[in-house]
Amino acid sequence: MSDRTRFDLTQEQLPTAWFNLMPAIAGSGIQALPPLHPGTLEPVTPDLLSALFPESLIMQEVSTDEWIDIPGGVLDVYRLWRPSPLHRAARLEQALGTPARIYFKYEGVSPAGSHKPNTAVAQAYYNKEAGTKRIATETGAGQWGSALSMACKFFGIDCQVFMVKASYEQKPYRRIFMETFGAEVIPSPSATTQAGKAVLEAHPDSTGSLGIAISEAVEVAATSGGAVRYSLGSVLNHVLLHQTVIGLEAKAQMELAGDVPDVVIGCVGGGSNYAGLAYPFMADRLRGVTPNMRFLATEPAACPTLTRGEFRYDFADTGKMTPLMPMYTLGHGFVPAPVHAGGLRYHGDSPSLSLLVKHGHMQAAAYTQNAVFEAALRFAHTEGIVPAPESAHAVKGAIDEAIAAREAGEERVILFGLSGHGNFDMQAYDDYLNGRLPEVEFREEDVAESMAGVPEVPLPG
Amino acid sequence: MSDRTRFDLTQEQLPTAWFNLMPAIAGSGIQALPPLHPGTLEPVTPDLLSALFPESLIMQEVSTDEWIDIPGGVLDVYRLWRPSPLHRAARLEQALGTPARIYFKYEGVSPAGSHKPNTAVAQAYYNKEAGTKRIATETGAGQWGSALSMACKFFGIDCQVFMVKASYEQKPYRRIFMETFGAEVIPSPSATTQAGKAVLEAHPDSTGSLGIAISEAVEVAATSGGAVRYSLGSVLNHVLLHQTVIGLEAKAQMELAGDVPDVVIGCVGGGSNYAGLAYPFMADRLRGVTPNMRFLATEPAACPTLTRGEFRYDFADTGKMTPLMPMYTLGHGFVPAPVHAGGLRYHGDSPSLSLLVKHGHMQAAAYTQNAVFEAALRFAHTEGIVPAPESAHAVKGAIDEAIAAREAGEERVILFGLSGHGNFDMQAYDDYLNGRLPEVEFREEDVAESMAGVPEVPLPG
Repeated sequence: MSDRTRFDLTQEQLPTAWFNLMPAIAGSGIQALPPLHPGTLEPVTPDLLSALFPESLIMQEVSTDEWIDIPGGVLDVYRLWRPSPLHRAARLEQALGTPARIYFKYEGVSPAGSHKPNTAVAQAYYNKEAGTKRIATETGAGQWGSALSMACKFFGIDCQVFMVKASYEQKPYRRIFMETFGAEVIPSPSATTQAGKAVLEAHPDSTGSLGIAISEAVEVAATSGGAVRYSLGSVLNHVLLHQTVIGLEAKAQMELAGDVPDVVIGCVGGGSNYAGLAYPFMADRLRGVTPNMRFLATEPAACPTLTRGEFRYDFADTGKMTPLMPMYTLGHGFVPAPVHAGGLRYHGDSPSLSLLVKHGHMQAAAYTQNAVFEAALRFAHTEGIVPAPESAHAVKGAIDEAIAAREAGEERVILFGLSGHGNFDMQAYDDYLNGRLPEVEFREEDVAESMAGVPEVPLPG
Repeated sequence: MSDRTRFDLTQEQLPTAWFNLMPAIAGSGIQALPPLHPGTLEPVTPDLLSALFPESLIMQEVSTDEWIDIPGGVLDVYRLWRPSPLHRAARLEQALGTPARIYFKYEGVSPAGSHKPNTAVAQAYYNKEAGTKRIATETGAGQWGSALSMACKFFGIDCQVFMVKASYEQKPYRRIFMETFGAEVIPSPSATTQAGKAVLEAHPDSTGSLGIAISEAVEVAATSGGAVRYSLGSVLNHVLLHQTVIGLEAKAQMELAGDVPDVVIGCVGGGSNYAGLAYPFMADRLRGVTPNMRFLATEPAACPTLTRGEFRYDFADTGKMTPLMPMYTLGHGFVPAPVHAGGLRYHGDSPSLSLLVKHGHMQAAAYTQNAVFEAALRFAHTEGIVPAPESAHAVKGAIDEAIAAREAGEERVILFGLSGHGNFDMQAYDDYLNGRLPEVEFREEDVAESMAGVPEVPLPG
């Protein structure tokens, strides 16, 4: 093990292919379930997706290849901030008095401040290749919208962003950031779509959710007659695929550090940032190389999809415009309380990540807001970086592991993903510092109704 | 010359000593002028500064050593973000259609988002060594206050920040960022000091200035009976010294790139970020190694100290509490209009940098706000990073040079300092995008009165 605190890769060590976990999942004997057409309940065929996505991304969505080359035009942009740093949080370890060694992979060095550009750039690139002139999308906290706005500007594509109203109001700087890159930003639910209107009629004061915003953006693309494509910032296989540059770099960096993680931790909204970090390591677990390596997905207690949801077929959006996805869900109608970790306010989760949790390869934990911000400050006060509220869930998980290691008197190697900085989330910190953050927890009564709306589709086996 | 676009140094290449330009200035035959006691007009002796600064920093202030070792405790913190990247802005070059090669050294990767931690960490370290329990300081845009708040938290020192009121109101997120690190933030002018009260009596609606905020912080320290020390984020020799890690790294990185700058560009408020980048290169010019290398200091047209001010002895603060400094000044009573580049709203400039301008080793240029933000967007749209309004002045200078190179049909190697990101400056971008940015230019009538208050102290020679 090294006594250094930072492990940098050279430009030559930038990964040149993305890693696809699906073959390793299949190889471990786990049967991946297909998305279903909600009408026929038959597996969705690629052509059904072609109204929304370019062919190249659909092929990645269903690919069974283990490695997929990263185009040069994408690598050129990645080089603006990649390889990203991996740090050992030695100052945090010392403050905690733990024998654990804590490493974190930091994606906040990207121009948009999070991991999201890893896929935004790839999606904009492939859309450009396919002749796309305009893309519609949704954003929760604004990280995805920021990344896609930037990527679209790079490739000369117009960008329209439906921003969850709770975040639109909490984070005006995120809106302006997107506008700086020329995007059109609309608070969701909006009156510009049928899906948005339906929500507003039922709930005029709706603060929105990712599920609603997805419906609006999908509707814009699906009803555009091909003029507008849709882009999603998480959940889908091709999105998780693009994020694996994080984990591929982290594996090389952990080798530089001379350490192997005992536990890999990340925060999960749709799952892409955590999958990006975890999947290259997970492949080793699935193949029996590191059978005892643990994986911990963290989420908000206000939206505890993995810890309290059910593994079911459900819609990925509130307006029921998407295929049925096999995943942990709180019900597509669930609208989480407006906690500050807007990027984690999603009723569902990536199917592949859900599958790994269901089969015991991943654990999950849910935390309340104040505990998360307390962890975020401990981290900032030692490592200097003020984490995004989403990423702070991973920090909380890592600190809990480090304290457990101290109490057990164990050396333990902890790797967590710090997916972004909190520069645009200062209102959340102000609320925390002034005791204004409500302790929002999952309420059974909220979810009973929305779970009732989940279609009864039997899972195989 | 390399065809790469990013030039990273390893941890082993982190500079281990700061570079002091004063010996090279003296060696070139330029006589540096001493700060004077305002009562006696005698050169200030180190002991007069001991009420404000620890001995170690005073020794650096007057040092004639060319190299000063960086303590291990400072290097440990630098490693959280250093060495910082040097990029070639190839996408910007392409968009400009210029034969110039544009490089930029990016300091926004620090946790506080600018170059300021380079000296904040050093100052907090030496204060800790000297037993300091509390530090008072001022901040313009909030970059310095953010950096010192973070550094003080690392070393267990309390921090009180007088924040220029114009910025306090424009940038609440900067205030919160400082509070996140435990600092007490007070809008300046305030009623908590005699200096602040005096300004408020004369100008109840004062939006403040760096000169006023310095007076308040100096007063707190000077009247504390030793309980509080003062810390300055620019202007002084020891501050510029700590920033030379920027230029030392940039020199090594330009060697990796296989290029030598024809012109080195930076923005100047007090001068520390630009000096930090420029001085290691300037030494070669002063010694005749690169006699034709040009240096361009950029500043706002609303506060054009180097381009329109006079080289005079003047106070560094509005309240006349500091020694008289030999520098370009617009008069210590000058209150610039509240332009968004709050960090450049300073009536004076670093004495050493002023001397280099006066002796023709550096040029200066002033730009109005809208031209600066236009340049900032051109940069963001190609390189992804949204610059701080201050740093955008350097971007404007670099783009102008690149266009001039295109028009002259010349290859030209341009190096500029991108001192920070604009994540906390979104209001300014919103104002620019919506045509709400006033074109503020220097008004002779504003300065006539304040220059009249500058003491008549003859310059030698």
